[in-house]
Amino acid sequence: MKYLIGIDVGGTSIKNGLFTNDGELICKWEIPTRTENSGENILPDIAKAIDEKLAEKNIDKSEVIGCGLGVPGPVNEEGVVQRAVNLGWGYFPLAEKAGELFGIKAYGANDANVAALGEAWKGAAAGYANVVMVTLGTGIGGGIIVNGKILTGCRGAGGEIGHMHVRDGETKPCGCGNYGCIEQYASATGIARLARERLMENDDESLLRHVGSVSAKDVFDAIKQGDEVAVEVGQRFGDYLGKALANIACVVNPDAIVIGGGVSKAGPVIFDYVKEPFEKNVFHACRQVDFLLAKLDNDAGIYGCAKLALDKA
Amino acid sequence: MKYLIGIDVGGTSIKNGLFTNDGELICKWEIPTRTENSGENILPDIAKAIDEKLAEKNIDKSEVIGCGLGVPGPVNEEGVVQRAVNLGWGYFPLAEKAGELFGIKAYGANDANVAALGEAWKGAAAGYANVVMVTLGTGIGGGIIVNGKILTGCRGAGGEIGHMHVRDGETKPCGCGNYGCIEQYASATGIARLARERLMENDDESLLRHVGSVSAKDVFDAIKQGDEVAVEVGQRFGDYLGKALANIACVVNPDAIVIGGGVSKAGPVIFDYVKEPFEKNVFHACRQVDFLLAKLDNDAGIYGCAKLALDKA
Repeated sequence: MKYLIGIDVGGTSIKNGLFTNDGELICKWEIPTRTENSGENILPDIAKAIDEKLAEKNIDKSEVIGCGLGVPGPVNEEGVVQRAVNLGWGYFPLAEKAGELFGIKAYGANDANVAALGEAWKGAAAGYANVVMVTLGTGIGGGIIVNGKILTGCRGAGGEIGHMHVRDGETKPCGCGNYGCIEQYASATGIARLARERLMENDDESLLRHVGSVSAKDVFDAIKQGDEVAVEVGQRFGDYLGKALANIACVVNPDAIVIGGGVSKAGPVIFDYVKEPFEKNVFHACRQVDFLLAKLDNDAGIYGCAKLALDKA
Repeated sequence: MKYLIGIDVGGTSIKNGLFTNDGELICKWEIPTRTENSGENILPDIAKAIDEKLAEKNIDKSEVIGCGLGVPGPVNEEGVVQRAVNLGWGYFPLAEKAGELFGIKAYGANDANVAALGEAWKGAAAGYANVVMVTLGTGIGGGIIVNGKILTGCRGAGGEIGHMHVRDGETKPCGCGNYGCIEQYASATGIARLARERLMENDDESLLRHVGSVSAKDVFDAIKQGDEVAVEVGQRFGDYLGKALANIACVVNPDAIVIGGGVSKAGPVIFDYVKEPFEKNVFHACRQVDFLLAKLDNDAGIYGCAKLALDKA
């Protein structure tokens, strides 16, 4: 029996997972992320957490195949972080430094990319080799799996699909500074915005008029109750996202598209709005795709980090 | 010294190349493509051509590392053709059949994808690991290279970027049956169409009014002479293509974009129109990309086929 360690480093907390080499999660635990002083404590804190856990489980470091780390920012193939603002890190040779400090081979990747890898390994898309994962949360994260491996790109910004341009003439900037990114219309905040805009267009009665501040959840709850205005909002959301996914499919020809993040909690109803524009606009040879809801929730990252270590070790 | 063979199978002719294992082209030659009877003669004709060439050069088959074949249609990772209408082939286990017939290990891929691999190996993008190639001809072909390897996708339709959806409300169908594909605006025929549409908008004087039937070449020739209407056509072309390339860059984060095909003969002037909309719309972490003109012309395919054999053997 050999072991893998997956570490999902977030801006607030660090999720850690100890796995067997065939991907069974033995235990998981969290530690806080100390971002002060340019995040200088982050790796030492993780090293300590690993040492304690291995001691507790009576596992020697020689039995650990490797450790994968997911971080919020672009990370290249060599595990070098380009920048991770939420951790206080600038350019940082993560894999090298972590390997030295942990005494275990270490590998790094972007957090959205490892989440995709986790879902493709042990989650919704287990058994699929070519996977697009899109995480609809406050923003939109993405990860592309090609032949079972993360598509990292030249600077670790592969799968940044939240910033695909989908609307001309947008007057409000996206968080990234551009105008008209898919994140502005299909994230949780984007859907809420589409709803507010729709409500202002006329006086049509809607359940959405009776909630304080409309959220994406309100929209899908209202859709489930047959609210026509909410259905229109769902159609606009689906049109943006379905077309963007169709374009991604022309580029990478996936066999599965996984939708995760808070918005995906609405359930299969989101596919009612995404699939039709997808199928209408995608190239015929790329049309045959399974749409799946993410399964691993917040554990996708640690699973993907473990798989990263397994692949790279 | 070992050898590689690259075979670019087109609907009219088959281009063959004999290479050293480090990618030096020793000789190239063509044979006609006999598509009758569901293309049953194509592989036997190639087998004969290979045997004759190896005999002429005094090369034993044991000295040949492998043979790559590029075909016009989707080909999966295992070298199985899904369909190649121009060759008369339906579903066809190309790599397996070719290997048996040639007595040499054989591998198959899509022709646009091997052209991208050729340019990334020995052409414009030599030294770049993550490359997007777009071929602007009668239609638009594409190929994506990730970490030096073809992005094949689940059914061999990776890199079909000519059919990305870029315009809503299109009333004329694309060759693929969809409406609003980038091929309808940025291919040679697409540029000619944009020119015709522009000329009909008003009576502005233009050199383009004095050619019989406007071609993409006419447009770029007129641009070089300062023709304002042609410049507007160039801007519209660049806006479509630049935005599509920006979206591709968000997905695959390339370090180089290579533009080839007949339209690229216009030269660097095309970048004047493509780069600005690209840079304006691309995600900042994916912005740093070198734009390059294809170098290998019609030989890109045989180079890429040879590299395919080198990688897979």
